[in-house]
Amino acid sequence: MVIFIKFNRIDDSLLLSKLQVEVSILQEKKHLLMLPGPTNVSERVIQAMTKPIIGHRGSEFHALHGSILDNLRYVFQTKNDVFTLTASGTGGVDCAIGNIVNPGDKVIIPVFGRFSERMRDKIVRCGGKTVELSLGWSEAPTAEQIAQLADKEKDAKAIAIVYNETSTGVTVRDLPKIGEIARENNLLLVVDAISVLGGDNLPMDEWNVDICVAGSQKCLGCPPGLAMVVVNNRAWEVIEKAVARPYYFDLVRMRDFIAKIETPFTPAVSLFYALDEALKMIREEGLDKRFKRHATCAEAFYNAVGTLKLKTVSNGKVRSNTVIAVRMPSGVNNTELRKVMKEQHKITVAGGQGELKKSIIRIGCMGIISETETIRTIDALENALNTLHYPVQVGAGVEAARRVFHS
Amino acid sequence: MVIFIKFNRIDDSLLLSKLQVEVSILQEKKHLLMLPGPTNVSERVIQAMTKPIIGHRGSEFHALHGSILDNLRYVFQTKNDVFTLTASGTGGVDCAIGNIVNPGDKVIIPVFGRFSERMRDKIVRCGGKTVELSLGWSEAPTAEQIAQLADKEKDAKAIAIVYNETSTGVTVRDLPKIGEIARENNLLLVVDAISVLGGDNLPMDEWNVDICVAGSQKCLGCPPGLAMVVVNNRAWEVIEKAVARPYYFDLVRMRDFIAKIETPFTPAVSLFYALDEALKMIREEGLDKRFKRHATCAEAFYNAVGTLKLKTVSNGKVRSNTVIAVRMPSGVNNTELRKVMKEQHKITVAGGQGELKKSIIRIGCMGIISETETIRTIDALENALNTLHYPVQVGAGVEAARRVFHS
Repeated sequence: MVIFIKFNRIDDSLLLSKLQVEVSILQEKKHLLMLPGPTNVSERVIQAMTKPIIGHRGSEFHALHGSILDNLRYVFQTKNDVFTLTASGTGGVDCAIGNIVNPGDKVIIPVFGRFSERMRDKIVRCGGKTVELSLGWSEAPTAEQIAQLADKEKDAKAIAIVYNETSTGVTVRDLPKIGEIARENNLLLVVDAISVLGGDNLPMDEWNVDICVAGSQKCLGCPPGLAMVVVNNRAWEVIEKAVARPYYFDLVRMRDFIAKIETPFTPAVSLFYALDEALKMIREEGLDKRFKRHATCAEAFYNAVGTLKLKTVSNGKVRSNTVIAVRMPSGVNNTELRKVMKEQHKITVAGGQGELKKSIIRIGCMGIISETETIRTIDALENALNTLHYPVQVGAGVEAARRVFHS
Repeated sequence: MVIFIKFNRIDDSLLLSKLQVEVSILQEKKHLLMLPGPTNVSERVIQAMTKPIIGHRGSEFHALHGSILDNLRYVFQTKNDVFTLTASGTGGVDCAIGNIVNPGDKVIIPVFGRFSERMRDKIVRCGGKTVELSLGWSEAPTAEQIAQLADKEKDAKAIAIVYNETSTGVTVRDLPKIGEIARENNLLLVVDAISVLGGDNLPMDEWNVDICVAGSQKCLGCPPGLAMVVVNNRAWEVIEKAVARPYYFDLVRMRDFIAKIETPFTPAVSLFYALDEALKMIREEGLDKRFKRHATCAEAFYNAVGTLKLKTVSNGKVRSNTVIAVRMPSGVNNTELRKVMKEQHKITVAGGQGELKKSIIRIGCMGIISETETIRTIDALENALNTLHYPVQVGAGVEAARRVFHS
């Protein structure tokens, strides 16, 4: 334990006993995992994993699983069928696409980052024909662009879309309108919400999303290892007709087992405990407050970054509330910046991916994010930039962020 | 806490102070998970999951993952490429088969229980043609049977085999000979070792196994949620030529990432911690001692069951050392028996699967199994049978088991 004493005013004429002192007792600084997933997990969730392992065909598991499903329906804002898969988020995408895309099926897909590329690749592996809307790695597809494609490609089967591009920090704000377009054109709407569910609004039933995928290690505040897939009746109709069906990710088989509140194969019980606890925390907080908390922290990040005259990848209304992607100013190497932030400030942030690999850092604004983590990250960023001889006014970013929290 | 005082000898002429007493301090009985997976996990492994979540592209993860890979090579007794997948064991089978079986490929597969059925189903979903050797649900395929099929099916590509049938408690003791047959006939040998790796001998390189699959929650003594797949050069040659490749389970992609000691997609970091600790425990114990421990406990189970005049599903040399499948005597309902064992004795055992669903119970003899768990389970079984009005001599099975441990 270290005690820092900060002297606010030292006056020659004052005796030591009369000094105005502020004493802060700081515990050793905890390392902050500010990645766009996996993220910091609360101690309550971590400790849940130490509960005894249970069989996955017994009443204890049914109770645990039932609680998870109930709370997931709350988070997805859905009345439809929810599945929790022992797999990473990409396993969830593999499942969603693999159950609906058959050889020759035409799928409309905007590509505007690494994760929409992954979705496209999976469609191709299923033998699907992609109708790609290729966008820059800072843009989001608009409802107009999707409407044009839907109008042109009358024989398309689905629209596949990443709601929040983890690689660029872009959120598709037109998603509700795209949902309407999908319905009007009798297209399925498949949404990858991995890096946003629980951190920003996504009332999937209201927005006409037919299949939605999420991951445990992002805004849900849980360790990695679980993916969630939600399926509505329009999607089931297509899934039931599929000529080729995946094995581990077979949704029809999962549906047979969910009737017994079970999974077809042995689930990661410890992670189910963690997810259950994380979801209970979400329910206690309430979705509205949770979205607002994410939005406020994101605004603080954007305000700080702007004040430091740094540029973000996304701008305007498509800026993500969960992933903050910051372009490196000239002369600053993102690997070195991350190294200084990690080693000197105990804060891990991510680099870029694909074409942005070397030119950005990405900060996760997810899960248990609060003013504390936000301020510490901005403070570390300011100091690390100075360490790397890119002068910024230390404290200016922090001050700009604080204004958001305390206005 | 309860203190039991057992008086070994009471002699009228002795004063209390001279009594020979044995004092055992017993903690409240812990619930024992005696399923054929998931199984009891040591506190050391459970606690490992509480370590802080880390990013999966950084040096901390590389160290953790490197340690796991090194110890997995020890457990698989291999020099080949090892992969740890965030998935259940069946995900590992999906991966192994999905990477080598292309439409039209002929695969020889003995079917003698639920898990060999699963392997067959996956081959069929890949468009493969199965050459099935249909056996009874108590038998194991022999080298002669496989040799005949290999001789007849000259255009076959692979033999797929379950080394230890979890549904019947049968181990394929001819596996080394089957490995020779596979080599002689230029067939790949794919082995599902999910319920046996770490509990019985499987020197995969020496036995010519080309792809081997295991699961975390069985004999490795780790919570469920991870599968391991090992691939040798003969298998890589086939995998590289594949026309269709899975996405989440793409081994070629995994190989690209393993070069950096990484995984393509976010791994279940907490479970990686647990697996690392479980593997360290295996290494500390040593494989030989570990196999002997499993074999001794299994022998104790079989001795006890025999003494109680109960029948096992498998007999003779194919009896499993990791799954003990016991047939219900006439008049005993396996659901009721399991209920009594669970509720009155705090011991969970499994029922049957498929055609054996109602007629057997299955006991896991896996992971941290020792004399304590073995004796408690047998004691519970004896008492539960009596509770259900099937009279057995209470203590006879326990005594028969004790003789195995103390001979």
